[in-house]
Amino acid sequence: MGESLGAWKMGDDEAILPYVSAVNIACGFHAGDPATMMRTVRLALKYKVKIGAHPGLPDLVGFGRREMQLTAQEVYELVVYQVGALAACAKVQGSALHHVKPHGALYNMAAKKSELADAIATAMYDIDPALILYGLSGSELIKAGKTKGLKVYSEVFADRTYQQDGTLTSRSDKHALIHDPKLAAEQVVHMIKTGKVISLQGTAVDIQADTICLHGDSKEAVQFAMIINQTLKDNHILIR
Amino acid sequence: MGESLGAWKMGDDEAILPYVSAVNIACGFHAGDPATMMRTVRLALKYKVKIGAHPGLPDLVGFGRREMQLTAQEVYELVVYQVGALAACAKVQGSALHHVKPHGALYNMAAKKSELADAIATAMYDIDPALILYGLSGSELIKAGKTKGLKVYSEVFADRTYQQDGTLTSRSDKHALIHDPKLAAEQVVHMIKTGKVISLQGTAVDIQADTICLHGDSKEAVQFAMIINQTLKDNHILIR
Amino acid sequence: MGESLGAWKMGDDEAILPYVSAVNIACGFHAGDPATMMRTVRLALKYKVKIGAHPGLPDLVGFGRREMQLTAQEVYELVVYQVGALAACAKVQGSALHHVKPHGALYNMAAKKSELADAIATAMYDIDPALILYGLSGSELIKAGKTKGLKVYSEVFADRTYQQDGTLTSRSDKHALIHDPKLAAEQVVHMIKTGKVISLQGTAVDIQADTICLHGDSKEAVQFAMIINQTLKDNHILIR
Amino acid sequence: MGESLGAWKMGDDEAILPYVSAVNIACGFHAGDPATMMRTVRLALKYKVKIGAHPGLPDLVGFGRREMQLTAQEVYELVVYQVGALAACAKVQGSALHHVKPHGALYNMAAKKSELADAIATAMYDIDPALILYGLSGSELIKAGKTKGLKVYSEVFADRTYQQDGTLTSRSDKHALIHDPKLAAEQVVHMIKTGKVISLQGTAVDIQADTICLHGDSKEAVQFAMIINQTLKDNHILIR
Repeated sequence: MGESLGAWKMGDDEAILPYVSAVNIACGFHAGDPATMMRTVRLALKYKVKIGAHPGLPDLVGFGRREMQLTAQEVYELVVYQVGALAACAKVQGSALHHVKPHGALYNMAAKKSELADAIATAMYDIDPALILYGLSGSELIKAGKTKGLKVYSEVFADRTYQQDGTLTSRSDKHALIHDPKLAAEQVVHMIKTGKVISLQGTAVDIQADTICLHGDSKEAVQFAMIINQTLKDNHILIR
Repeated sequence: MGESLGAWKMGDDEAILPYVSAVNIACGFHAGDPATMMRTVRLALKYKVKIGAHPGLPDLVGFGRREMQLTAQEVYELVVYQVGALAACAKVQGSALHHVKPHGALYNMAAKKSELADAIATAMYDIDPALILYGLSGSELIKAGKTKGLKVYSEVFADRTYQQDGTLTSRSDKHALIHDPKLAAEQVVHMIKTGKVISLQGTAVDIQADTICLHGDSKEAVQFAMIINQTLKDNHILIR
Repeated sequence: MGESLGAWKMGDDEAILPYVSAVNIACGFHAGDPATMMRTVRLALKYKVKIGAHPGLPDLVGFGRREMQLTAQEVYELVVYQVGALAACAKVQGSALHHVKPHGALYNMAAKKSELADAIATAMYDIDPALILYGLSGSELIKAGKTKGLKVYSEVFADRTYQQDGTLTSRSDKHALIHDPKLAAEQVVHMIKTGKVISLQGTAVDIQADTICLHGDSKEAVQFAMIINQTLKDNHILIR
Repeated sequence: MGESLGAWKMGDDEAILPYVSAVNIACGFHAGDPATMMRTVRLALKYKVKIGAHPGLPDLVGFGRREMQLTAQEVYELVVYQVGALAACAKVQGSALHHVKPHGALYNMAAKKSELADAIATAMYDIDPALILYGLSGSELIKAGKTKGLKVYSEVFADRTYQQDGTLTSRSDKHALIHDPKLAAEQVVHMIKTGKVISLQGTAVDIQADTICLHGDSKEAVQFAMIINQTLKDNHILIR
């Protein structure tokens, strides 16, 4: 959320807020600016959802989605900076950060490279050891958070298919995305109830589903949020 | 301080640190970047000087020195963002912010425009009411800080001449700057001992001298710092 | 046009193109990026409309709408840079620039301050004396262009009201905008046929209407473009 | 050259200019800004050296030295934009561009990845087929330029050692740099006279030496330029 920039709007944040329990707010490097951050925190508080920082790579034109060769120290520093900036936006509105989830290419890089994962976990720990780390289920980032002593939430994707080794199917594969919100909701319920996901190859793969990622910037975002939210309720699964 | 940017260096921060008791660190909008901010905080801690945030206008190429028509709300937001970012850089190094001093054109705009001064004071108060506000002696910024209930330090300039109405002589005037460090040091001692400054017109003008501004980015910065520091000691004035 | 930025879209450029004869394309300082500029030039060529550069202030978050205290030399330099960048985007597609229209706060500043107006006209002349300058009817910018020997097009606004001194009613006034596209179209026809506009005060004011400004970033932009285009045709006024 | 940014200075461009015949000028993405570009073009004209564009990655804080995952199309677009901007700075001063040399990580990426090399060569060709392409001797970039029909200059390094496969020794190796300017000058003369370089492994490796790269941002830059220039003269090698 909060991925607008000045006069440019992205997503319909307020329409999604009734269906989620926590949001990740951009911090000004890949998207967002001080005004957008303040406004998005205000919206999150209005809907009583948890506020997380969504630090990204310093690349507005690329929306933080183009990998950059950063050192672990550079990653540490840009996480500290961005989390600090959003924490202040929350503090002046009487609130505080609940979690941190790296954005885009930073999230993907930290899923695979342990030294970058460690840098993120250490930055979070140094800022506030109570911050919860959201990372890809089974990733280096989740490992790094556990090692550091942080509380971690393993993240799964409703609208993405999985490979038999537990990784996400690459976006370059035509079967990468699940376009039908009902199928996406069913995948989520299955993951939560069984601790497994059915891979594209048809095998059942272990998965830890603590939190479900929904993108706020797509046109179908609101519909997906609504249907998944309702399907969870229908299955007596509490969102909290 | 901390006004380097990536590969570009500015000033010799470490050479000045032995002679000062507090520093203002750039926060990434007019100068500075996460790595520079972390390194400058580390240096300040090494020399046991107080750390202040030096938020500026979002204008790297203009070094935050070109006035921009910002609303009070925009000023509030960019102060929150930048102070929060530097506060995190201090926190992860076991420290905290002591004060805030706006930079460049933002400092000058806030000296004259009460609504911008109020925005800065309010942002500081909302982040942490214990933060001390550094502002131009006699300015709207000092007034706004007092009204808000903040502790304020009135700032004077060693190397600038004053007009009979208490304002600084404009930089476009050839008598604006005092180039001789001894004369600058004498002006400082006079201000502290008498509460007055002799204006260019020859009159004595009331002035409140709580803190003395030294620029870190000039070539003579170290020499000025050394001589003013020594002159204060010679006059039994304690820097604290 | 071309005021998108990376993943952020603004306006529906292609929907407006059938109704206009010339476009102003953002050049990367207030909006736009190399990909957006290339794509917008391609669209303009597809619809056979004239291509103009729309250089702005270096302020993405403020969309170039916040005045900045720039020197005439700085304005000269940023016009050269931006016009050169867009000219290359046109050249590699077998085309060339037809005109230049400054954007937002730069346009407004140049309408009032003759030294900034001169800087823009001189930059254009130095790049290519055949470039046509689009400026506010009756402004310093139009004067500067004529003095320099450039061909100038005086610009009028369909959806803005005028004061009896020929200036636009300030946007802070509730009567600043004309919301009804039919009334806007009638004002345009009146300006073209009579060389006068009826001010808010009811007086007829001289005005030169060589080109009509339509904003591409509003929701009603397409409808306005369509109705004004049709009204001009109905009145046998040729758009060329 | 021209790698200053606003108030931040880098290198002593004017001191090096008497010893070189061509310069590469930063174009605002990794370094440089409109004012710096205009000033550097002026200096180059004063010393009658050829002017080249030095387009880089959009990463000021990383000085364009951090690899970014760009598509070939993105590379094409950012070369067009930056070369166009510098071309205008040259045109308004009565000059024109002589060559293009990609900067930093872009140069290195284009040396290895043929699709990025093709994008650069095509952008140059589309802007002006007479532009000369400077690329690492033996690289994909040189190949792409030849295929496209551009004139190419193979670049060698005076102060870097080579591996037996003709590549530069990685900067992470302690033998990567030649610190003694006399040894560097001797390596250059050897390369020009014999068409070979002695690798770190002691073998003679074929190399094409059309142009010698000197960095303008190091402290020893002026001394290196002076000694290499003199050594070439002593060996009756004409710099042109």
